[in-house]
Amino acid sequence: MKIALAQLNYHIGNFEYNTKKIIDHIALAKAGGADLVVFAELAVCGYPPRDFLEFEEFIALCEDAAKEIASHCKGIACIIGLPVKNEAVAGKDLYNAAYFIEEGEVKATVKKALLPNYDIFDEYRYFEPATAFECIDFKGTRIALTICEDLWNINNNPLYISNPMDVLITQNPDVMINIAASPFSYEHDDARMVVLSDNAKKYKLPLLYVNQVGAQTEIIFDGGSLAYNNEGQLLDEMPYFKEHLKTYTLANGTFEGYAPVAHAESSDIAQIHDALVLGIKDYFGKSGFSKAVLGLSGGIDSAIVCALACRALGPENVMAVLMPSKYSSDHSIRDALDLVENFGCKHEIIAIKEAADAFDSMLAHAFEGLSFNLTEENIQARSRGIVVMAMSNKFGYILLNTSNKSECAVGYGTLYGDMCGAIGVIGDVYKTQIYQLAHYINKDCEVIPENTIVKPPSAELRPGQKDSDSLPDYDTLDAILYQFIELKKSSAAIIAQGYDEAIVKRILKLVNGAEFKRYQTPPILRVSPKAFGMGRRMPIVGKYLA
Amino acid sequence: MKIALAQLNYHIGNFEYNTKKIIDHIALAKAGGADLVVFAELAVCGYPPRDFLEFEEFIALCEDAAKEIASHCKGIACIIGLPVKNEAVAGKDLYNAAYFIEEGEVKATVKKALLPNYDIFDEYRYFEPATAFECIDFKGTRIALTICEDLWNINNNPLYISNPMDVLITQNPDVMINIAASPFSYEHDDARMVVLSDNAKKYKLPLLYVNQVGAQTEIIFDGGSLAYNNEGQLLDEMPYFKEHLKTYTLANGTFEGYAPVAHAESSDIAQIHDALVLGIKDYFGKSGFSKAVLGLSGGIDSAIVCALACRALGPENVMAVLMPSKYSSDHSIRDALDLVENFGCKHEIIAIKEAADAFDSMLAHAFEGLSFNLTEENIQARSRGIVVMAMSNKFGYILLNTSNKSECAVGYGTLYGDMCGAIGVIGDVYKTQIYQLAHYINKDCEVIPENTIVKPPSAELRPGQKDSDSLPDYDTLDAILYQFIELKKSSAAIIAQGYDEAIVKRILKLVNGAEFKRYQTPPILRVSPKAFGMGRRMPIVGKYLA
Repeated sequence: MKIALAQLNYHIGNFEYNTKKIIDHIALAKAGGADLVVFAELAVCGYPPRDFLEFEEFIALCEDAAKEIASHCKGIACIIGLPVKNEAVAGKDLYNAAYFIEEGEVKATVKKALLPNYDIFDEYRYFEPATAFECIDFKGTRIALTICEDLWNINNNPLYISNPMDVLITQNPDVMINIAASPFSYEHDDARMVVLSDNAKKYKLPLLYVNQVGAQTEIIFDGGSLAYNNEGQLLDEMPYFKEHLKTYTLANGTFEGYAPVAHAESSDIAQIHDALVLGIKDYFGKSGFSKAVLGLSGGIDSAIVCALACRALGPENVMAVLMPSKYSSDHSIRDALDLVENFGCKHEIIAIKEAADAFDSMLAHAFEGLSFNLTEENIQARSRGIVVMAMSNKFGYILLNTSNKSECAVGYGTLYGDMCGAIGVIGDVYKTQIYQLAHYINKDCEVIPENTIVKPPSAELRPGQKDSDSLPDYDTLDAILYQFIELKKSSAAIIAQGYDEAIVKRILKLVNGAEFKRYQTPPILRVSPKAFGMGRRMPIVGKYLA
Repeated sequence: MKIALAQLNYHIGNFEYNTKKIIDHIALAKAGGADLVVFAELAVCGYPPRDFLEFEEFIALCEDAAKEIASHCKGIACIIGLPVKNEAVAGKDLYNAAYFIEEGEVKATVKKALLPNYDIFDEYRYFEPATAFECIDFKGTRIALTICEDLWNINNNPLYISNPMDVLITQNPDVMINIAASPFSYEHDDARMVVLSDNAKKYKLPLLYVNQVGAQTEIIFDGGSLAYNNEGQLLDEMPYFKEHLKTYTLANGTFEGYAPVAHAESSDIAQIHDALVLGIKDYFGKSGFSKAVLGLSGGIDSAIVCALACRALGPENVMAVLMPSKYSSDHSIRDALDLVENFGCKHEIIAIKEAADAFDSMLAHAFEGLSFNLTEENIQARSRGIVVMAMSNKFGYILLNTSNKSECAVGYGTLYGDMCGAIGVIGDVYKTQIYQLAHYINKDCEVIPENTIVKPPSAELRPGQKDSDSLPDYDTLDAILYQFIELKKSSAAIIAQGYDEAIVKRILKLVNGAEFKRYQTPPILRVSPKAFGMGRRMPIVGKYLA
């Protein structure tokens, strides 16, 4: 039995696009001699479809697409993921399901039981959990087909009570297939491999795993589909962050021609780099845009975003706007111009002094007798926001936000100023990781000048301003933030690790006090296990830790 | 048996505040002769605590507060809602629970089974559903205590499979008590009364229902706690949008001294008015702010927000900023000044021409040869945003957003311009409801001048601009939006009702195309069954209906 895995990049709700892609890959797999081709979880509509699922028409369109796909399924079988109606009188309206299609007909429907409803996941919002499980017989092979999380209760995951594979194994399957939409984080690939290997080992079955690839706004799927033997040894690993189609021959209880291999290790930073490039590319491609604009300050954050945008969209599609204030140093402009030259992107220089002066004059009466403070800093940051948004409106460029995770966390940024943008490129990357990313980008050739990397970070909104004036050093800051955000530790627990009490309390208070700002920031490309956005849902007017 | 219901306004995560309030009301109820005093669902921590629940320390603080409360519970019993740990090895970490406390000790823990996970609710994210149900015996009375949604499967609610009351009724209880955190919408009070009445009738038991009151950022609880007899007839209704404590005497299977009464009907608009005033008041009070700023255009939307803010915070705490553009008519300024005089609030007049001219000049080179378009309109709207934010930063005013639901829906607003603000006051109120709200506000005395109500809406960002240039009339627009947003109908279904196909398709496309803007807008006070914000989760880069 030849089983092809199609690791593809879908577009949520774009039925025409997804259906064509699936049909094309059925034809390719068939031409390659496959008996069966397997597509990912919710491949038909893309993942996560969110509240589109609450529209009856959307579900009908999924069903229409499945019919169209089935009609192309002749001489080869396929497995596709899609939402299907729950016909029972009680329970949620839908199942997260998969169709097994053979000779143009849906021969089996498999439903998901373990519905993730944590972090970015909301599956209980839409889906009823499955309670019955049956293997699929195809050409003399019995397949235990599961959907993503249904394999994740292997090691007594405290989240779940049942384990579908414990039922399926009693039916004596020959092979396990798992279809997934398993989002990338720099920690998740390792966790996933442990889970899959442990399943193969526990149930003594060869296992194929197919994941989605591509970004859906903030959520990035990394692909990396996998094949295991029945001892839980890795046999093959498909590429990461790329579409791929590959056929495996199941014979004698294993995948013919594959010996155990080691996981192709890749550094967290290399993965983050590739994820962000794909995230930008897909945000633009799926929105129908091609050109990006960003404010380039000469600092490291915007330099990195510019570098990633050039790699994702081509430098000819990137417009860097240099917006010196009256407090900007000459070297900032020089650094920014060096960057532009290295990247080969377009640029404009638009000083903001005139706007800042206009606001000062307009507000002179209201502000009479009051001195320069954060207000005037914010006016400058917001004037920059107006300039880049004007470039966006006039020329159809889409604004990239350049705030990093450390800044987002403590609210070190101006709402409607440098917090503007359609998508936050590095909002899930701590400042200490930003430096690593800069070195990674420079690994073959210095595109980000050393001066940009080593100079002290500054917003340049008042004379001689430096980040370190108001924040602890980034090593300390990021370590504390990681404990609080990713690990959800209390201040007491963080202090017990040896961090200064006053600093810890101040930082946690800043993080909680910045919820109202983060509520209004752009979606952020998610690369960590706990990103700001849909995966972290905090009250705004809440008093805990404030 | 005398049972007191305490309908109170809690503050999420503010343990000191909530605990003191609960203890004070235990004393008051005791002084009033009550045997038992009942507080609402999650009263100890406030609702919804969201991801605060994922912090172990937060749960420990809930437990500490419960201990403190219990120590004050002598000579009177109490019921309090709080999250409690799930001690089992599998399943979610927590239960949504209630403690029954008698003589300083927790005598029973009741857990919630039916966990809402739709619209604004995420209870499956945190809580394990209960599977066992037991009545509480207290002073010879057997109490069937349930938490909110656990009574909501009375009429075969398709969302749920089980019904806790069907178990509890087999234990022969004497009375039902339901503790809730049931958010307001102008439709919800009626639905709630049907559910409660049907429970009392079906199980032939008297029923007491206690709800939270007060706003938690966007979610507003309306109170309106209720008492029913065992035929499902309403006996008493506590006030709406106010705290209240009341004691009922259970004797001979009913509440002594109460005869069936009719529900005190109140118009949707009157309820929305009261909800929004409370929403503003609590946003400020719970954030520790007292003063508001808003842009006052002379149009109806900002006039209404100004009126509501004056009622919520006192006119002395409201600063209206008039920001005429070079396209503003004299009558706009006159209308706005009339409003300021009627309301008695403070004002500033700050023309934006100087800033708009500065940006024109700064962008002259980049925009050479290109004509005035939406870009320049947005620059003006954003210059206004900078001015009001500067007033906010300099004086500690909090900016109120004045966008209405019709505008938010179709994206008729400028991101980082008129879409700025800390809280969206009327973002869940359609333009057609805005007019009704204006008449309601004027019911005793004309505070909003007739001219502001009758003149054609305009953003005044280009000569002679009117909303109707780019949008269908608001009656048509709102009717179509309601079908799509509240009722989730497809374009085909809406067109089938007789609406023009081209208009319907254009509007739905506008709504979907504005997701990226709505993602970055402030939280919106929720008054409808489907508000923008946490209750409506749509993909941004999604192609359905786009």
